[in-house]
Amino acid sequence: MRIPVPLAKAYRLLNHGPVTLVTSAHAGKHNVMAAAWAMALDFDKLTVVIDKSAFSRTLMEASGEFVINIPARGLARAVVQVGNSNGECIDKFSTFGLSVENEPSTEIPLVSGCAAWVHCKIIPEPHNQQTYDLFIGEIVNAWADDQAFKDGHWSFADENLKTLHYVAGGAFYVTGESLNVEL
Amino acid sequence: MRIPVPLAKAYRLLNHGPVTLVTSAHAGKHNVMAAAWAMALDFDKLTVVIDKSAFSRTLMEASGEFVINIPARGLARAVVQVGNSNGECIDKFSTFGLSVENEPSTEIPLVSGCAAWVHCKIIPEPHNQQTYDLFIGEIVNAWADDQAFKDGHWSFADENLKTLHYVAGGAFYVTGESLNVEL
Repeated sequence: MRIPVPLAKAYRLLNHGPVTLVTSAHAGKHNVMAAAWAMALDFDKLTVVIDKSAFSRTLMEASGEFVINIPARGLARAVVQVGNSNGECIDKFSTFGLSVENEPSTEIPLVSGCAAWVHCKIIPEPHNQQTYDLFIGEIVNAWADDQAFKDGHWSFADENLKTLHYVAGGAFYVTGESLNVEL
Repeated sequence: MRIPVPLAKAYRLLNHGPVTLVTSAHAGKHNVMAAAWAMALDFDKLTVVIDKSAFSRTLMEASGEFVINIPARGLARAVVQVGNSNGECIDKFSTFGLSVENEPSTEIPLVSGCAAWVHCKIIPEPHNQQTYDLFIGEIVNAWADDQAFKDGHWSFADENLKTLHYVAGGAFYVTGESLNVEL
């Protein structure tokens, strides 16, 4: 079940370096793309690299917002599919059979089967966007599946909700065993 | 054994989102800090967040360079130790028993027991550095342990060289099983 994540803990959804799906919407159009280059920038901000050729970028720049979806392992094929197709030519959601959840606070679709979702407003930084394709988002809302993340920590109570770490091509690593250091 | 990684493949060392150790040196001083917020920015660039209070930042800004070390699982305790101490007060290398390798092309120490190392020159971006603590590095050199990364891909032939993904506090995930999607 999708539950809210306190904003002060939302950066932890990205700390371990999962691959992401970026969703966006504007004027009745929507899209989804894959992004491995995303990270927390601060406790209330994140960054993501969005190439100039991406249709998602057009939607993001027009609407000023985007959602970082953190896919569970079952979505590995979908990550590769949406990463190798163009949302200007096809509806990736229907083409690849992706279900979405509607969240009342935004028109951006949340991809079903993810472990977590982070809704961001773009902090306009034209130089970064033009020179480095780097977008900075202020985190305005976050949710997680309660079988994956609870009380501010990943639990992966449901092993199937373990997240993915991108390598290259169609290769990923699944999030592995936990390790705790006590000083 | 540490071997060179072709620069065109160096971004892959960070793609899967490992925690990093940042090393730096200037005028006979050196330091090491932990950074979970690091990512590839392009095929030849990366970003890392370095807080204004970090002694490493002083060394980085003075020398214009840094090394991203990607620790293997055996260094988890060291990651937490160097992340909770101040290099202006103590020599973290000797205090925490960290061995280093000297690389002729830089005076920055490489932390032994890592899976990979990426040497970067800072691309000065004062606004990003001041506003977001965000540093952009151009990758000028990269190496990996040949039992961890070879022929442009992570292999983790030696399981002990698997990398770490940071959660919070002293908690990590180890890089898990590999998963390959064929379209």
